[in-house]
Amino acid sequence: MLDMVIIGSGPAGLSAAIYAMRAGLQTLVIEKQPMSGGQVLNTVDVDNYPGLPGIGGFELGMNFRKHAETMGARFVTEEVTAIESPEGKEKVVVTNKESYPCRTIVLAMGATHRMLGVPGEEALRGMGVSYCATCDGAFFRGKTVAVIGGGDVALEDALFLARGCEKVYLIHRRDALRGARLLQQKVFDTPNIELVWDTVAEAVEGEGTVQMLQIRNNKTGETKGLPLQGVFVAVGITPNTEIVRGLVDCDEAGYIRADETCKTSIPGIFAAGDLRTKPLRQIVTAAADGANAITAAENYIYTF
Amino acid sequence: MLDMVIIGSGPAGLSAAIYAMRAGLQTLVIEKQPMSGGQVLNTVDVDNYPGLPGIGGFELGMNFRKHAETMGARFVTEEVTAIESPEGKEKVVVTNKESYPCRTIVLAMGATHRMLGVPGEEALRGMGVSYCATCDGAFFRGKTVAVIGGGDVALEDALFLARGCEKVYLIHRRDALRGARLLQQKVFDTPNIELVWDTVAEAVEGEGTVQMLQIRNNKTGETKGLPLQGVFVAVGITPNTEIVRGLVDCDEAGYIRADETCKTSIPGIFAAGDLRTKPLRQIVTAAADGANAITAAENYIYTF
Repeated sequence: MLDMVIIGSGPAGLSAAIYAMRAGLQTLVIEKQPMSGGQVLNTVDVDNYPGLPGIGGFELGMNFRKHAETMGARFVTEEVTAIESPEGKEKVVVTNKESYPCRTIVLAMGATHRMLGVPGEEALRGMGVSYCATCDGAFFRGKTVAVIGGGDVALEDALFLARGCEKVYLIHRRDALRGARLLQQKVFDTPNIELVWDTVAEAVEGEGTVQMLQIRNNKTGETKGLPLQGVFVAVGITPNTEIVRGLVDCDEAGYIRADETCKTSIPGIFAAGDLRTKPLRQIVTAAADGANAITAAENYIYTF
Repeated sequence: MLDMVIIGSGPAGLSAAIYAMRAGLQTLVIEKQPMSGGQVLNTVDVDNYPGLPGIGGFELGMNFRKHAETMGARFVTEEVTAIESPEGKEKVVVTNKESYPCRTIVLAMGATHRMLGVPGEEALRGMGVSYCATCDGAFFRGKTVAVIGGGDVALEDALFLARGCEKVYLIHRRDALRGARLLQQKVFDTPNIELVWDTVAEAVEGEGTVQMLQIRNNKTGETKGLPLQGVFVAVGITPNTEIVRGLVDCDEAGYIRADETCKTSIPGIFAAGDLRTKPLRQIVTAAADGANAITAAENYIYTF
């Protein structure tokens, strides 16, 4: 029986693997794709992982991976299909190929940003199309950008970007914002944020980098092109928690309920990284979760 | 008026500075000593900061510092003596030289490991004398070590070390442990942990690295030398929170009460790193706190 199975190999899963190896736990990391790293691999520049200024996303992901391998972490490329006897002292992680009995499980499957699904979005991802203002905003100082969305994250992104950008369009499909009142007021009071109501994005255009956003007014049908350098998509993210729905306690949006100890509603099952309820989803907070999850798992194993 | 004053320049303070600069906040970092970095500077090898395997403590501290400087963070070397009008929208951080009006404050003064205060301890620090088993334990695989203390951390350290070390002495000045019952049972059940009751350390000896621990039995007065390679001191740490005692809510041990959002009992004052109540004190969790504190501070500033 393994001490631990880690499901997922983004920063949270790899940090958990590093700490698990240091703790001497018999550990297996199960990843869907042969090359691990998570969302970070698709980020052009990171620049906010303390200690590694200006590193590229792919390079940082590879650093995490190499670190875990240096520590002796073992990886398999399989797809988890079920968790059996989750409440038992011997839990079983079932994949499309094998069954792995284990004492503890760290859920680290991450989250996926929702996409607009418009032409040019995929092609210009990382070249002006971003899903994280906190991550990429600093690269757009003095430029014109659009934020698409109307919830808290969209408002926070717009305010964040307005401090460094020349101009921020906030594009929302309805005629009222969903985000917190106080945030709304702040957005209204910020002179370089222009609200564009009842409007959806139709296409992102540009050669190599973003140059134009095509938009359409829902009510009038009018279309036009906004010349700009960045498009921040803030229409939500989806936690990759399908395999544990109905098993561990999740919130309405599907995030696994867990505080910074990473303990879920089931003893011996831990949630680390973007898929748990937490105030800030960043590489460094995912890495911290990996460490916290192992500490909690060790304490759980001691009480066997 | 500054947007933010960060007090302290260990990993938590420097991470906060990095995130604050990225958020466009007018920020000042106040540090006691001209060379910042915190406890990490005194750690020989780190090896558990994800993404930087095998880096030295000094080098990692310098990386954090350089990262903050690259982002444009401003530092002054002064000693904070008081925080005036802490509840106000305009708070004032007073030092031995200046007064700094500011909207928000991040407390990141860290913690100090309690020392035994015996001959050889200071000289062999980092050369076999350690204050963190999670940090340094992996370097003692197959070796003989002693853990000094009787609380939860000492027991956890002993169990952690026993998985990799040949032998672990657990040296406690009383005839009963203070740590959790379940941890005690686990310690008693671990064959390579030897309990040494009623005993204190008298001196750490060795040339270049630790070779011997001199101990004395409190009851019999008997002294002897234990040949070993590592001494893990687990007699507690003290948070450096003197300047805010009576100001923000602290627990009995002096840690500032704050969850992972880093919010203290006073709006606009945040606690990041080892000085707050948290499950695991590590470089990566301190760095995560820095990021979380800025996010909370930004939301506070929006509601001004």
